[in-house]
Amino acid sequence: MQYEDRVDALVAPKGALEMLSQDEISRMSEDSGSLHELFRRCALAIMNCGSDTDDAEAVMKEFNDFEINIIQQERGVKLELKNAPGSAFVDGKMISSVREMLFSVLRDIIFTYHEYNLARNLENASSDKITNVVFELLRNANVFRRIQSPDMVVCWGGHSIARHEYDYTKRVGHELGLRELNICTGCGPGAMKGPMKGAAIAHSKQRIRNGVYLGLTEPGIIAAESPNPIVNQLVIMPDIEKRLEAFVRTGHGIVVFPGGAGTAEEILYILGILLHPKNADVPFPLVFTGPKESANYFEQIHAFIGDVLGAAAQNKYRIIIDDEVEVARAMKQGLEEVRHYRKAHHDAFYYNWKLHIPEEFQHPFEPTHENMLSLSLNFNQETHLLAADLRRAFSSIVAGNVKAQGVAYIKEHGPFHIHGDKQILEKLDALLQAFVAQQRMKLPGSEYIPCYKVITN
Amino acid sequence: MQYEDRVDALVAPKGALEMLSQDEISRMSEDSGSLHELFRRCALAIMNCGSDTDDAEAVMKEFNDFEINIIQQERGVKLELKNAPGSAFVDGKMISSVREMLFSVLRDIIFTYHEYNLARNLENASSDKITNVVFELLRNANVFRRIQSPDMVVCWGGHSIARHEYDYTKRVGHELGLRELNICTGCGPGAMKGPMKGAAIAHSKQRIRNGVYLGLTEPGIIAAESPNPIVNQLVIMPDIEKRLEAFVRTGHGIVVFPGGAGTAEEILYILGILLHPKNADVPFPLVFTGPKESANYFEQIHAFIGDVLGAAAQNKYRIIIDDEVEVARAMKQGLEEVRHYRKAHHDAFYYNWKLHIPEEFQHPFEPTHENMLSLSLNFNQETHLLAADLRRAFSSIVAGNVKAQGVAYIKEHGPFHIHGDKQILEKLDALLQAFVAQQRMKLPGSEYIPCYKVITN
Amino acid sequence: MQYEDRVDALVAPKGALEMLSQDEISRMSEDSGSLHELFRRCALAIMNCGSDTDDAEAVMKEFNDFEINIIQQERGVKLELKNAPGSAFVDGKMISSVREMLFSVLRDIIFTYHEYNLARNLENASSDKITNVVFELLRNANVFRRIQSPDMVVCWGGHSIARHEYDYTKRVGHELGLRELNICTGCGPGAMKGPMKGAAIAHSKQRIRNGVYLGLTEPGIIAAESPNPIVNQLVIMPDIEKRLEAFVRTGHGIVVFPGGAGTAEEILYILGILLHPKNADVPFPLVFTGPKESANYFEQIHAFIGDVLGAAAQNKYRIIIDDEVEVARAMKQGLEEVRHYRKAHHDAFYYNWKLHIPEEFQHPFEPTHENMLSLSLNFNQETHLLAADLRRAFSSIVAGNVKAQGVAYIKEHGPFHIHGDKQILEKLDALLQAFVAQQRMKLPGSEYIPCYKVITN
Amino acid sequence: MQYEDRVDALVAPKGALEMLSQDEISRMSEDSGSLHELFRRCALAIMNCGSDTDDAEAVMKEFNDFEINIIQQERGVKLELKNAPGSAFVDGKMISSVREMLFSVLRDIIFTYHEYNLARNLENASSDKITNVVFELLRNANVFRRIQSPDMVVCWGGHSIARHEYDYTKRVGHELGLRELNICTGCGPGAMKGPMKGAAIAHSKQRIRNGVYLGLTEPGIIAAESPNPIVNQLVIMPDIEKRLEAFVRTGHGIVVFPGGAGTAEEILYILGILLHPKNADVPFPLVFTGPKESANYFEQIHAFIGDVLGAAAQNKYRIIIDDEVEVARAMKQGLEEVRHYRKAHHDAFYYNWKLHIPEEFQHPFEPTHENMLSLSLNFNQETHLLAADLRRAFSSIVAGNVKAQGVAYIKEHGPFHIHGDKQILEKLDALLQAFVAQQRMKLPGSEYIPCYKVITN
Repeated sequence: MQYEDRVDALVAPKGALEMLSQDEISRMSEDSGSLHELFRRCALAIMNCGSDTDDAEAVMKEFNDFEINIIQQERGVKLELKNAPGSAFVDGKMISSVREMLFSVLRDIIFTYHEYNLARNLENASSDKITNVVFELLRNANVFRRIQSPDMVVCWGGHSIARHEYDYTKRVGHELGLRELNICTGCGPGAMKGPMKGAAIAHSKQRIRNGVYLGLTEPGIIAAESPNPIVNQLVIMPDIEKRLEAFVRTGHGIVVFPGGAGTAEEILYILGILLHPKNADVPFPLVFTGPKESANYFEQIHAFIGDVLGAAAQNKYRIIIDDEVEVARAMKQGLEEVRHYRKAHHDAFYYNWKLHIPEEFQHPFEPTHENMLSLSLNFNQETHLLAADLRRAFSSIVAGNVKAQGVAYIKEHGPFHIHGDKQILEKLDALLQAFVAQQRMKLPGSEYIPCYKVITN
Repeated sequence: MQYEDRVDALVAPKGALEMLSQDEISRMSEDSGSLHELFRRCALAIMNCGSDTDDAEAVMKEFNDFEINIIQQERGVKLELKNAPGSAFVDGKMISSVREMLFSVLRDIIFTYHEYNLARNLENASSDKITNVVFELLRNANVFRRIQSPDMVVCWGGHSIARHEYDYTKRVGHELGLRELNICTGCGPGAMKGPMKGAAIAHSKQRIRNGVYLGLTEPGIIAAESPNPIVNQLVIMPDIEKRLEAFVRTGHGIVVFPGGAGTAEEILYILGILLHPKNADVPFPLVFTGPKESANYFEQIHAFIGDVLGAAAQNKYRIIIDDEVEVARAMKQGLEEVRHYRKAHHDAFYYNWKLHIPEEFQHPFEPTHENMLSLSLNFNQETHLLAADLRRAFSSIVAGNVKAQGVAYIKEHGPFHIHGDKQILEKLDALLQAFVAQQRMKLPGSEYIPCYKVITN
Repeated sequence: MQYEDRVDALVAPKGALEMLSQDEISRMSEDSGSLHELFRRCALAIMNCGSDTDDAEAVMKEFNDFEINIIQQERGVKLELKNAPGSAFVDGKMISSVREMLFSVLRDIIFTYHEYNLARNLENASSDKITNVVFELLRNANVFRRIQSPDMVVCWGGHSIARHEYDYTKRVGHELGLRELNICTGCGPGAMKGPMKGAAIAHSKQRIRNGVYLGLTEPGIIAAESPNPIVNQLVIMPDIEKRLEAFVRTGHGIVVFPGGAGTAEEILYILGILLHPKNADVPFPLVFTGPKESANYFEQIHAFIGDVLGAAAQNKYRIIIDDEVEVARAMKQGLEEVRHYRKAHHDAFYYNWKLHIPEEFQHPFEPTHENMLSLSLNFNQETHLLAADLRRAFSSIVAGNVKAQGVAYIKEHGPFHIHGDKQILEKLDALLQAFVAQQRMKLPGSEYIPCYKVITN
Repeated sequence: MQYEDRVDALVAPKGALEMLSQDEISRMSEDSGSLHELFRRCALAIMNCGSDTDDAEAVMKEFNDFEINIIQQERGVKLELKNAPGSAFVDGKMISSVREMLFSVLRDIIFTYHEYNLARNLENASSDKITNVVFELLRNANVFRRIQSPDMVVCWGGHSIARHEYDYTKRVGHELGLRELNICTGCGPGAMKGPMKGAAIAHSKQRIRNGVYLGLTEPGIIAAESPNPIVNQLVIMPDIEKRLEAFVRTGHGIVVFPGGAGTAEEILYILGILLHPKNADVPFPLVFTGPKESANYFEQIHAFIGDVLGAAAQNKYRIIIDDEVEVARAMKQGLEEVRHYRKAHHDAFYYNWKLHIPEEFQHPFEPTHENMLSLSLNFNQETHLLAADLRRAFSSIVAGNVKAQGVAYIKEHGPFHIHGDKQILEKLDALLQAFVAQQRMKLPGSEYIPCYKVITN
C-alpha cells in the first residue's frame, strides 16, 4: 500500500491567523494576486518535504497542476488545496508540522508583506529602518518568545555535502544539544538539517521539550531547499540580505560547516560585519569546523581569507577539525561571554541591536551582468567594503546555481563575468574551482555547468 | 504602620510590550505628547484603585504632582513614575495586577492609538470599518485568546447602587460563576464589581483557574470608575460607542442590574440593535434583574420601554426579580442557543460578526447643546432610530454627571436642554426624576445637581 | 427558585484515587465497616459547607437519612450518595471543590488509615515513628508538592470570634497574600476562614494562580468546623496530636488570632515545643495579633504565660496589635530566617524534620475524669512538661465543648475536674472565665454550660 | 578531545523520590544489602548506554570498579557514584534521561521491592494477586498517568536483527507515530529501539510533545539490553513473567518484528493467552511484520504455529509483509475496536483488567535441567497449556543465551535438554536451527554455541 500522489484538502490554521478581521481577510484575498504565484511556489516547497532534489524547476514542473486558494469565512481564513503532494498527508490529514509551516508562509508572504506594503516603502530605507523591519518580521513570526537566554547557535554550511560531512554536522548538533543549546539554520538539507537532527536527539536525551529549531529562508531559495521537518519555527524573510541580517541578530554565535558558494557568501557577510570598527568589542563566537577529511577545505578558505581580507579577518574565527565536543564547548563558552556583554549593556537576549551592520550589507543586490561589473574587487578600500562586494559576487553565483530566477537569467544571458584585481581574482577562481571539483555547487547526480566566468586577464 | 502616600518607581512591563522595536519606542516617546495627559490620567485612575470616589476631578487634584514618563532602553520600554499613589505598591513593589493594567493603558492609549493613527483615518469611517477597528483593538489586547466557547456574560448596571443591590449582584455573579461562566463589565464599582467578585469566589469553588474578568472602559470614564482589582483583562476603547460595540460583540449575553443614566443608555443601545430587522434571528440572551426591593425600578423601566419603543422591544428581554439561580439558569440556557447558532453559521465564538449594528449607534456623539437640539425624540421614525437618539440623550447625561470634560462643559454652559415629542418627554422626565430620587446619578454623599433640563412644554 | 434540599448522586473521583487496584477497591469496600460511620460523618461535614453551626450533633440529626457507599467498578471507585445536602450541588452536579474534599476524606479515612493499619501498629509507637507517620500522611495527601519555599503561614484562632476580629483576620490574610505567602489553618469558620479569604483576594491581585490554602483537620472536629470552600488542599489527620504536629512541621511560621480553649491549647503546644532545649536554635516566627479591641485579650494570655511558664516562654513570640502590615512584614522577615537556616542545614523546605517534638506532645490524650486527675499542673517539673499537661487540659475542654464524643461524655458523667497547684489553677480559672464572658467557647446564639470545673481549693 | 572514561559524581533525584521519610531512607540504606548487587548491575546497564554489546558479563567486567551508594540526607536521598561510565555525562553533568532512568532503577529495585517485601509474600500468590501486584508496580512508576486513550502499541522483536530489518522497524514506528500512537518495547537495541526512533521523529513532525516511549525490562535482561535513550518511562519488573503481563495489560495492541528465541517466547505467551476461552471476545490487535527479505521468517513461524497450536492460533494475528503503512492502519483500526470495547465495558484504558491470564503464564519459571524435564510438550492437553510450556522452553533458551545467571548455569551444567512429543520437537528443532542460521540468537560478531539440545529420538 502506498501514499496517494495527489491530495485535495481544505486546511484551517492553528493559532493567530485564525483571528483575522474581515477587513484583513478580504484585503488578503483581493491583493494576493500580485503575490499569489510566489505564495503558491513557497507552499509547494513546504509540502514537497519528502523530495530529494534541489532543482526547483523540476519540482514546479512535477506539480504544475497544484493549486492553492485563500478561502474567506466569517470565522477566519482557510486554504483550499488541489493536487497537493501526497507526502504532506497521513491518511488524508495534513501533517501538523507541514500545516504549521504552510501558515507561516501565508503569514509571511501574504499577510505580513501585504500589511507591510500598506504602511511603508522600503526601497530607499535607511539602515536603521531595515534593522527595524527585520525585527518586526521576526517578532511577528513569534521568534523572540522562545529566546530566553543566549543559546541560539546558527549553523551554516552547504546543502550539498558528502555523507561523512553530513554525519559530522549531526555529531556537532548532538553535542550542542546535549549542552542545551538551540539551532538556527537556513532550513534546507545537508548542513542545514544535520545539526538540527543531532540536537533534536540530544534534547530528547536531556528531556528538553521546548528545543528551538529555527529555519530562516527566503522566497528565492525555499523551493530549492525545502525546510526539513525538524524545523519548528519557520520564517520567510523578504530577501537574502534580510535573511542574513536575521541570522546574525537573532543568533548568538555561528558554526560554519563545509559548503559551496552560499557558505562562502555567509562567511564573507559575517567577517565583513565583524571587521567593521564599530563592532570591535561585540563578542560573537564564530567557529569553522568539519570532519578530518574536510581539513583541506578549511585550509583553502583560511588561506583565501588571509590573502584577500588579511590576518585581522582570520582572527575573528577559530578552526576546529574533527572534534565535535570541542566545537560545542567553544560555543558554550563564547555564549557565556555574549550573556555577560548583553547583561552589562542592558541589551536584549532576543535581538542583537548593538551589532552594527553597514548598509552595504543590507541593500538587496540584484545579480545582473551590469551589477556584477560595478563590483569593486580590489584592495583600494576598507576591508569590510571589499568583503561586501565579494559577498555580492558569491551571492550571484548562488542565484545562478539554484534560484529559479537566477537560473533562468543565466540560461538567457550566459554566465556572469567577474572582474577585478588580478591577485584577488586568481585566488577566487581557484576557490571556485575547488568547490566545483568537490561537488559543492549542486546536489550530486546533476552535472555542474558554471554560471560565472572569472575574468582574470 | 501604614503604607506610604507616594511612591517613585521604575516599572518594566511583562510580556509583549517588552519587545518593541527601537523605531516603535522612539516614535512612542516622541509622539506621546498629544496623548500624554490622557495617558497620565488613565494611569492615575489605575493606580488609585484603593479610592472610593467617582469624582474624577478630586482624584486628579489630589495627585496633581503625579508624573509618568516613558523610558527608552535598548531592551524595551519602561515607565518612570513619580509621586504615584502608595496603594498601588506593597513594600515598594508594584502589585502585579496594577502593573498589568498600567501596561494595558500604555498599550491601548499610546501604542495602539498611535499605530492606528498612522495607518487609518476613522472620522468618516464606514460601519464595517468601525466594526473591524473594534475587532483589531480587542485582538491586540489579547481578549480573543481566552474565549473558547460562548460563556462571556456582560453585566451592566449602576456604579452607584444600594448595599442590598450590590449584594444581589454578587449573588448573581456567584451563580454565574458556579455554572462556569465568565464576566465582562465596565470595570468600575457597584454593579460592575459585584458580579466579578461573586464569580471569582465561585470559580475558585469550581477549581477554575483561568476565569476571565474582562473590563471594558474608555478614557472619559476610567477616572470616575477605576477598574476594580479583580479585572484580569483590561481594554481602554477609544470612545463610548466603540466600548458599547465591544460589549455586544465579545459578550454572548447580557444581565442588566439597576442603575442610572448610564444603564439606561446601555439598555437603549442593545434594544435599538436587537430591534433592527436584520438581527431578528440572532439569539441574544438579555435579562433584567435585581433584588426584590428593586422590583419597582424595573417596572418603571419596563413601562418606559413599552411606552416609547413598544411591545416588540419588551419582548427582547426577560425580567427576573430576586432569583439569582433563575438568572444564571436563564443565561446558561440562552448561551446554549448562541452556541448552536454560531456553530450552524460557522461564526466565531470570540466575536459576533453577524450582529448588525446600525451606524447611528457607532458614530461618536459629542454632547453639546447644539447636538442635543438635533436629536429626534419622536414617533415618526423607525423604532431603532428613536432608540438611538434616546441613547444619545442618556449618554450626554452620563457625560454631564461624571466625565471630566462633560462636567466642565456643564459648569460653563449650564444644563443640556432636551426637546421632543411631549408624550415621550414626560415619560423620560419621570424616569430621570426617579433615578435622582433613588440616588442613582452619583455616588451617595454628594448632592446631585441635574445636568439636563427636560423641555416638556 | 431555590436549590433542592436533598440530592442523590453517583460521584467519580478526579485524579489518583481513580487508579486503585481491584485488590485495594475490594479491601476498601469490605473493611470500611469499622470506619464507615466515621467516613459518613466526615463526608456529611464536607458537603454541608453552607451551614452556619458548630453543633455537630444538630447537623447529623438534620441529615440522619444521608447515606454514602463505595461502589466498586472495573475502572475504579465511585461514591454513591443518597439524601446528600443540596448545597453541595449546582443544577445536580457536585461543586468541584466539594468533590475534591470528599475524595480527600475517602483517601484519608478509608484508604490511608486502612493501608496504614495493615502494615503498622501505632499505639506504642516511638516519637520518631509518629513523626514519620505524620510525614507519610501529608505526602500521601500531596501536600509537599506545592511547598517550594518557606512561605506557609499557619493561622490559629477561634472559630467563634466577633465580626471586627474576623474582619481583622481577613486584613492580615490580605497582607500576607500580597507578600506571596500561603495560608494553612484548621479549616473551619472564624479565624480559620478569614486569613484564607483575605489571601485569596490578594493572590488574585498579585496574579498568583497556585496559592495554597491548606486545611488540616481531624475526624473529631471536622463536623463542628466544616472546611470552608477556599481550602484547596484538605487533610484529615487521625487525631488532634498528629494534626498539631502537621501544623508545626509543614508550617514555617504561625500567626495566632484571638480564640478560646482550642487556641489556648495550640499556644501551649507550640510554646512547649519551642521551650525544649533541643529547639533553642530553630527559628520559628510566632506572632500573636488582633484588632485594637482585642488588645485586652492578649494582655491576659501574655500574663498567664508569664505567670505559669515564665519570661523565657514570653520571649518566644511577639504581640502586634491592630497592624496587619506589620504582622505580614514580621512574618516575611521571619520566614527569610527560616530559609537561611534550612539551607544552611540542608533541610527540606516541605517538612521540618529538625524540630524536636517531645513525646508528651505526640501521644493521644483521651479526655476522661481519670486522665484529667493524672495531669501534673504544678511547678515541680521542666517548663515544657507543664506546658504539655496544660495543653491536655485545654484539649479536653475543646472536646467537651464541641466534639461529638466529648459532648456525649460530659452529658453522661458531668464536667471534668481540674486539679493542681493553687496558683496555677487560679490563673487558669480566670482565663477560662474570660473566654466564657467573651463568648469564645461556642458560636453565639447558644448558651454556654462549662464542661469543666476548676478545683482551686 | 574526548569524553572521560570514568566519572565520580553525587546525583540527586528529580521528583517523587526526593520526598522519602527518614524512616524509608534509613530502611533503604540498611536493607539494600541483599539487593545491592542487583541494583549496582542495573545502574551500570543504564549508565553504559553508549555500549554496543549484549554481553552482560563483558560490561560488568569492564566496569568492575564501579561503585554506587545510597546517601541519606535530612532532605532526601542521593546516589554517590564512583568510576561511573563517562558516556553518561556531559562536561561532568549527568545526562537528564540517564539520571531519570537511574532513579527509576532505585525506585523499582530498592524502594518498591523492599516496601513490597515488607507487606506481602508473593511466592505462592494467586493469579489475581499477581495481577494486582503488576498493577501496583506500574502505577508506582507513574505509567498510567500518560495513558489517556488506547494508543499504546507494544513492539516485540529481536535485539539482534539485520540492518534492513532494523530500518523497517523504524519505518513502522514512523507510521505509527504519524498516527499519534505511542510505543512500548523491551527497551533494548534492534527491534526495541527502531520503532521508538521512528515514532519520535514522527511525533515531532506531528508536534506531539508528550509522546510516550515506555520501556519494560527486568533485572536479568537489562544488562544485556541496555535501555535506549529514547525511552522516557522505564520500569524494571521483578521477573520475566510479570514483565510479559505488564506488556499485555498496559499495551493495547502488539506488533511483532523478526527476532530469535525471545520473540518466539513472546509470541507463544500472547497466543497462549488469546487462545484461552475466557478471552475469546477481548479485542487485541496483533500483527506480525517485517521487510520483504523477512517474509520467509514469518512463513516458518506461521507454519510452526499451525503445526503445534493449530489454525485457531493462526487466526489470532495478521501477517503483513513490507508495508509499514498498512501495519499502522491495521493497528489504528484495531485500537478503535479496543476503545469501543473498553467503553462498552466501563473498563479503564490504562490497564486491561478484563484479559484473563492463566496462572501457568504468571508464575516464574526457573530454567534448570530438572524443570526443563518437567515440561509437557505434547498434544494431550489444552492448547493454551501447550503454549505455556513451549513459552517456558524458549524462555530458558533466552536465559542461557544472554542472561548472566543463565549463561553461568549453562557453563557449569551444559546445555538444557528438551524432551517431548516427537512431532513437536522436530518442528521446534527446525525453527531453532533457522534462528541460529539467521544469527538471531546473539549480536553478530560472537560465535553462537547453543545452550540447549533438542532430544528428538
